[in-house]
Amino acid sequence: MPRQLPPIFLLTDFGLADVYAGQLKAAVLKHFLQAQVVDLTHCIEPFNIRQAGFFLDTSLPCVPRGSVFVCVVDPGVGTPRDIILVRIQNRWVLAPDNGLISLALCHHPAEECFALPVEEGSSRTFHGRDVFAPVAAALAGGEDPLSLGSPKSTEEIETDPRISPRTLEGYLECLILHVDRFGNIILNLEVSGPEKDMLDHCQGYLAGHPLRPVYAYAGLYPGELGILTGSQGYLELAMDRASAASKLQVGPGEEIKIKLGENNASSTLHGDA
Amino acid sequence: MPRQLPPIFLLTDFGLADVYAGQLKAAVLKHFLQAQVVDLTHCIEPFNIRQAGFFLDTSLPCVPRGSVFVCVVDPGVGTPRDIILVRIQNRWVLAPDNGLISLALCHHPAEECFALPVEEGSSRTFHGRDVFAPVAAALAGGEDPLSLGSPKSTEEIETDPRISPRTLEGYLECLILHVDRFGNIILNLEVSGPEKDMLDHCQGYLAGHPLRPVYAYAGLYPGELGILTGSQGYLELAMDRASAASKLQVGPGEEIKIKLGENNASSTLHGDA
Amino acid sequence: MPRQLPPIFLLTDFGLADVYAGQLKAAVLKHFLQAQVVDLTHCIEPFNIRQAGFFLDTSLPCVPRGSVFVCVVDPGVGTPRDIILVRIQNRWVLAPDNGLISLALCHHPAEECFALPVEEGSSRTFHGRDVFAPVAAALAGGEDPLSLGSPKSTEEIETDPRISPRTLEGYLECLILHVDRFGNIILNLEVSGPEKDMLDHCQGYLAGHPLRPVYAYAGLYPGELGILTGSQGYLELAMDRASAASKLQVGPGEEIKIKLGENNASSTLHGDA
Repeated sequence: MPRQLPPIFLLTDFGLADVYAGQLKAAVLKHFLQAQVVDLTHCIEPFNIRQAGFFLDTSLPCVPRGSVFVCVVDPGVGTPRDIILVRIQNRWVLAPDNGLISLALCHHPAEECFALPVEEGSSRTFHGRDVFAPVAAALAGGEDPLSLGSPKSTEEIETDPRISPRTLEGYLECLILHVDRFGNIILNLEVSGPEKDMLDHCQGYLAGHPLRPVYAYAGLYPGELGILTGSQGYLELAMDRASAASKLQVGPGEEIKIKLGENNASSTLHGDA
Repeated sequence: MPRQLPPIFLLTDFGLADVYAGQLKAAVLKHFLQAQVVDLTHCIEPFNIRQAGFFLDTSLPCVPRGSVFVCVVDPGVGTPRDIILVRIQNRWVLAPDNGLISLALCHHPAEECFALPVEEGSSRTFHGRDVFAPVAAALAGGEDPLSLGSPKSTEEIETDPRISPRTLEGYLECLILHVDRFGNIILNLEVSGPEKDMLDHCQGYLAGHPLRPVYAYAGLYPGELGILTGSQGYLELAMDRASAASKLQVGPGEEIKIKLGENNASSTLHGDA
Repeated sequence: MPRQLPPIFLLTDFGLADVYAGQLKAAVLKHFLQAQVVDLTHCIEPFNIRQAGFFLDTSLPCVPRGSVFVCVVDPGVGTPRDIILVRIQNRWVLAPDNGLISLALCHHPAEECFALPVEEGSSRTFHGRDVFAPVAAALAGGEDPLSLGSPKSTEEIETDPRISPRTLEGYLECLILHVDRFGNIILNLEVSGPEKDMLDHCQGYLAGHPLRPVYAYAGLYPGELGILTGSQGYLELAMDRASAASKLQVGPGEEIKIKLGENNASSTLHGDA
């Protein structure tokens, strides 16, 4: 019978120019040779907990049920912060308790939570390899989470107060969750959220630029800035084959305000059938 | 019995700083947990269809027979371009029909071709994850291609007219297919093509530099520019531990002209036994 | 019964923007479809043999016993340098004989060594794919190393004379083995070596900065430079959420001198309990 073990997905800020990501994978395999380890990304900006939280949130529904996420963006490594193991949407998430899973918790409740012990004598600078990896290997191998840590109330999980958008008089105040390789700006506005409805009924303006809603990047005119339903479940500011982030000179973690003006007929879709 | 499933090789311009490549892998595994997914590269220059085509062409013979290539360089995502599934050299290639497989088709004919349906309601910005991944998973799992798409004439596959070199009076006009990490310049001159014969009988000159044919990078003198039979099956302009691309100030997609002069005795091989 | 084959770990300077790493993986799978191939890193600085040796040394104990390392940092590819297969700590290391395994040999003796033949007609620019990959695949599949190469004396393995630190009058002369993504500077001072003892009893100074020993990055004050027992088994110069390498303007391969002064009470640990 073919193996049907849940895969382990890695999400870190280790980068790829070091062997940290490689040693994390090696450590998982050393503890459980049959494990299937998959790189989600190791290129989170160093220490950018919120970007890691965005990637976790949007990747949760993409992975098979039962999968294990190993999330290591952990500026407090070696200090007495908890390492937690949380079940969300029937996936397991292993992360430092530093707000990383906040965005995911906005959409689905934590089903279970455990705090993990850090053994004396383990390294104080590389918990990913020395603490997270053996736990992930054990989980993927079918071990009972109860044997891996002690139950912790899901109410006590650290959260990030800045993660939700705010609606002000005539404005939407958003956070830039991520700027992707193509310069698309991903905002903390869910495609199924109330702010989306607002934008469907008003014309949005950003720094004087009208934001035209489109369905596909290729639906924009050269140089035009659009707003579209991105693949990650959030609204994106985008251009066709050009960088919206360069045009607007903004980056991840920054706040931007979208002005809500009157809608007008010219903002209908075109060209992308 | 050990698994003998054909692996799936990924070739995209998603980069590694986003989770797009990770979600593509996750989606394949969600559809078929036994799949063996291998990153060929995700670092194709954004929207550089021709570079993707070069990587596909040179990697086709490297992979096991029956393997599936998932090629996503797709500036037209969400527009009505076809997604095609093509059999070449007994490997399956899944790609947007935008000329990406042109170079591969110069060397081997398409054996079969199918056009794939894009379901209503699938995302219009991330077909890699939402359309390509399930098809690749199904193929790797042994599903009949006929059940995945509808037959399309191999004559109708989009091609790139600029992909072949041109011989002019006393000149070779080439295209730079790729500049690699080491600054080696890979030209659209096949090592078994007629242009190679031409260069074997004439001395090539580029911007005044004589191009000395060598067998190994270490066979070049410091600062000298050589031309060698690269590992990818194409001729390369190269230097020893230095960047030919920096010396010549050229990049991928550019055209260069090699002047064909008289051969002379000094251009024989040396030092690389 | 689940597969229990030893994994193959790849360590190269191929980078990720080319398909070289991808073709190496493809070639392993073409020779042995069941192989489990893991990227340690492909982002070694081009031609930086010493950095590769550092990564190999620190990763050896992280991988399962019996694993195979494929190390390709090989500026002499195509010249008559040997390719060697060495057993160290019950792992197999495949590398060009160019000093790459020097640092690993400082800690554990080579248990066996074989020189590998390079077949006529194989490429002279890409031995990783054409020579290393089939050997690694054969090893992982259980083939006898004696059938892969001819025995070579472990005494004859190329070594790097510069790899050990030197103690001078009142100074430690160290080599920077690596600067990681976070700007931590990894020195060739082992955490269990005599130089560590020396630093435990004297205050170290670097360019006028006192080096405070700490257990965790977060134990340092903002802007302060510390020295800590890094996760790789070597001492690291580090800062808290800042780059020690930028502060000191140094890079890998450089030598630095640590002045040994009198110890004083202020250099005890704080804050990282």
